[in-house]
Amino acid sequence: MSPTHPRVAIVGVAGRMGRTLVAAVEQDTQAYLAAGIVEPGSSLAGADIGELAGLGKLGVAASDSLNAVVDDFDVLIDFTTPQVTLANLAFCAEHGKRIVIGTTGLNEDELTRLDAYRDRVPMVFAPNMSVGVNLTLKLLETAAKALGDEGYDIEVIEAHHRHKVDAPSGTALKMGEVVAESLGRTLKEHGVFAREGQCGPRSDKEIGFATVRAGDIVGEHTVMFATEGERIEITHKASSRMTFAKGAVRAARWLADRSVGRYDMQDVLSLKG
Amino acid sequence: MSPTHPRVAIVGVAGRMGRTLVAAVEQDTQAYLAAGIVEPGSSLAGADIGELAGLGKLGVAASDSLNAVVDDFDVLIDFTTPQVTLANLAFCAEHGKRIVIGTTGLNEDELTRLDAYRDRVPMVFAPNMSVGVNLTLKLLETAAKALGDEGYDIEVIEAHHRHKVDAPSGTALKMGEVVAESLGRTLKEHGVFAREGQCGPRSDKEIGFATVRAGDIVGEHTVMFATEGERIEITHKASSRMTFAKGAVRAARWLADRSVGRYDMQDVLSLKG
Amino acid sequence: MSPTHPRVAIVGVAGRMGRTLVAAVEQDTQAYLAAGIVEPGSSLAGADIGELAGLGKLGVAASDSLNAVVDDFDVLIDFTTPQVTLANLAFCAEHGKRIVIGTTGLNEDELTRLDAYRDRVPMVFAPNMSVGVNLTLKLLETAAKALGDEGYDIEVIEAHHRHKVDAPSGTALKMGEVVAESLGRTLKEHGVFAREGQCGPRSDKEIGFATVRAGDIVGEHTVMFATEGERIEITHKASSRMTFAKGAVRAARWLADRSVGRYDMQDVLSLKG
Amino acid sequence: MSPTHPRVAIVGVAGRMGRTLVAAVEQDTQAYLAAGIVEPGSSLAGADIGELAGLGKLGVAASDSLNAVVDDFDVLIDFTTPQVTLANLAFCAEHGKRIVIGTTGLNEDELTRLDAYRDRVPMVFAPNMSVGVNLTLKLLETAAKALGDEGYDIEVIEAHHRHKVDAPSGTALKMGEVVAESLGRTLKEHGVFAREGQCGPRSDKEIGFATVRAGDIVGEHTVMFATEGERIEITHKASSRMTFAKGAVRAARWLADRSVGRYDMQDVLSLKG
Repeated sequence: MSPTHPRVAIVGVAGRMGRTLVAAVEQDTQAYLAAGIVEPGSSLAGADIGELAGLGKLGVAASDSLNAVVDDFDVLIDFTTPQVTLANLAFCAEHGKRIVIGTTGLNEDELTRLDAYRDRVPMVFAPNMSVGVNLTLKLLETAAKALGDEGYDIEVIEAHHRHKVDAPSGTALKMGEVVAESLGRTLKEHGVFAREGQCGPRSDKEIGFATVRAGDIVGEHTVMFATEGERIEITHKASSRMTFAKGAVRAARWLADRSVGRYDMQDVLSLKG
Repeated sequence: MSPTHPRVAIVGVAGRMGRTLVAAVEQDTQAYLAAGIVEPGSSLAGADIGELAGLGKLGVAASDSLNAVVDDFDVLIDFTTPQVTLANLAFCAEHGKRIVIGTTGLNEDELTRLDAYRDRVPMVFAPNMSVGVNLTLKLLETAAKALGDEGYDIEVIEAHHRHKVDAPSGTALKMGEVVAESLGRTLKEHGVFAREGQCGPRSDKEIGFATVRAGDIVGEHTVMFATEGERIEITHKASSRMTFAKGAVRAARWLADRSVGRYDMQDVLSLKG
Repeated sequence: MSPTHPRVAIVGVAGRMGRTLVAAVEQDTQAYLAAGIVEPGSSLAGADIGELAGLGKLGVAASDSLNAVVDDFDVLIDFTTPQVTLANLAFCAEHGKRIVIGTTGLNEDELTRLDAYRDRVPMVFAPNMSVGVNLTLKLLETAAKALGDEGYDIEVIEAHHRHKVDAPSGTALKMGEVVAESLGRTLKEHGVFAREGQCGPRSDKEIGFATVRAGDIVGEHTVMFATEGERIEITHKASSRMTFAKGAVRAARWLADRSVGRYDMQDVLSLKG
Repeated sequence: MSPTHPRVAIVGVAGRMGRTLVAAVEQDTQAYLAAGIVEPGSSLAGADIGELAGLGKLGVAASDSLNAVVDDFDVLIDFTTPQVTLANLAFCAEHGKRIVIGTTGLNEDELTRLDAYRDRVPMVFAPNMSVGVNLTLKLLETAAKALGDEGYDIEVIEAHHRHKVDAPSGTALKMGEVVAESLGRTLKEHGVFAREGQCGPRSDKEIGFATVRAGDIVGEHTVMFATEGERIEITHKASSRMTFAKGAVRAARWLADRSVGRYDMQDVLSLKG
């Protein structure tokens, strides 16, 4: 088994993201689709995960237990909930597995618990796995360093579908953080998340956020740098979940021969430094 | 004196909007530039208003008193402050003058006092005099009526320069109101002016607002109607104050032969009904 | 059988648009999915059209002949090729069926032949069935009439996926035609489809087109009206084929109790006049 | 005289760009406004260049001859025509002056002649002096290297005012060239400047251009990288000539202590390598 052709297990193959992940692994010529997990006791246990994904029979039966497939996979891909993810991290630590985590919405405590595994499990953890988003973060760093102290105002505008429950999006916050860090600022001090009424003129160092929620928008993010006479806008638009799934599979391949540690997509894409 | 070639006086010719108004009247072949007002006691009283506007000498000296030019003009154009505007309305009522009002930021009480002149003065009062913005309001009404009850989410996104002190802009609120009225909703009940944190999924009937403040953006407004599978966006972008000044002069010409009453730009542009 | 609950047959259920149409009819509570056609001799004849569409078994077998299902349906939906569509029109004329046609790319001769059926078949023929696109056409007419002769330049910008073979898109051309007609112009005389090299300044009356081809863009169209000081932009963005399919099903329902005639989506949506 | 506080002369102070350059030098605390040139025999010779620029008297009289002010300046700023610029380069070579050139539209022959001065005159030559545009070029290089060979389609979209005579803009071509070079392509082979009619599907390696001409748009450029599932767009919007003028003054300051050589804005902004 080549370490660069990892055997991949996917958690939550009955859900929409899980099914997209199945399709992405299936398309990838350098990763094996090895296992798919459904919730304990699910009536879908035993179903073919290809058929669940609308891809036709792939010969891999959904399992309702990681234990049952422990010998079948090298890397787990997990886009679920904080609780499930933390349980899966414990499993990976115990059994020497790797994990790619796209789960969002972890609170401070859950983040601390996750981080505690960085010395025991090789993991990629990123709020957004898209190659484009992660390149965008790099571009933002370059732009912020070149412009930030020359009188450019910075704003982050994001739009998502009507079902999204939090605002701004995790990706918008990450973009704001990258810009803030590049300029020696913090979102805590300089982030402005709502403007309403007589709020006065904009301060020089604030980083503003604007949020749109409508229709079926998969995810659009723009960071604007504006001054007298010009604007630079760096925009990412996701048009399908496939962009996140493809990034996750790329992360799984990259992770296959890493030692323990907590990595992000900047590591996977060699965009650091 | 043809009523369609009105003699126009401009309040505040030393300010940026005033100077743009001088240029707009000067460009218009159907309006006479008759007088320009500066603050009482201003050192600029007596200066040529063309030179103040960077247009070269026009042979009209700035006056620091409306009384001094009372016989020289038919229509006053006023983009100032609520207090100044209310004083000018009283003057117009007393002396049988017409007035075009582009002043913004009037509170409830000031609006009531302004409205009291509707039976005594022919006035055009509009938060935004641009032809394009007012056409946009008409398009929004058409779109809202066609789409609003068919599962389309509605969002208003606006961007202005760093100096703007209120949010959302008066024009954004007006756009939201037009949409709300067309659908039997109100901004009071359905307007959502900020989203932050765990705010839950979007409700069907809400009208969301997102605000951007950066650089020298003169004014950009987009209203989005989005559903599964598609979006319609109606956008207005102002690139200079000239768009407001030109609309004001058009309003002054239109107002020249109207009887007393309170009108808006929809009246001026025949976009009603 | 209520005429407003028509029995619908879909041509090309093995293709991507056909499968989306199957899903759209299945979702609609006022239309029956009655038949699905595949190419003569196709190995998919006999397959369940729900399973072909990834929807699970629906109990309707694909047929490779319209004759075989002639008694099963009232309205045919056809997004195929000019040749197939003309053959299907002949079939509908002979058997008293109705037809909704979303086929594009017909040449002059094929359009003439199609039009000859207007006295024999109730048909809706539209290059773009989306509700949003057709509302956009109405908005363009309103905007063009209000702005067109006041010094506003008009440009049509469109973007589609990398596989699209023609430029500008049929929808972009339709938008340009609606604007041109509203202003007493023609695309033949005033359309500018490419600018390259030293092409000189823009003429006042030209209607420019700009074309983008990239990635998986389903279809985006913007018409811009721009003058000194401002721009109005009316934009439609399709995010999935579902928008066209839903419009086609709405057309099929509307067509169910019409007499012979050639209609378009403006008729279906009552946007005329 | 500090070499970093250069004495600046501006060519063409009667024109719109010239007047903006006067304003930009006047605003800059590290450059002296030393001279302004008008065409030989112009009736404006002798006029105060501050008054020509609408800034009030600055105490510098316009001259219609570089010879007459040869001892007054260190750096010439020239946004004129190819012929005038080449004559001014000869003057700078003879008299040991530096020059910042923003002139566009040079043909092959003129470019060769300009380049011949690289060993005799310290010059900054850039088709677009805006800080933002030049940062954008750097971002494009980063993005192209990260994405270009991974199935991303590349398109350049630009919009300018109705008076612009060439297409695509010099800046759009420069953006395309930067992307092409980063990917081992050339615009000669891979640039597609017009799409019309049945042009077939997009090829993988082509770099497409789309041009919009309307109203008073100062200059907008977007480069799009699009693939299945996502798009990255890098956009620059100029809102006034001031952005080019400010860049030119920054270039003049930077150039003040350079030795002979031909530089561009990437050098001035330290964005190389």
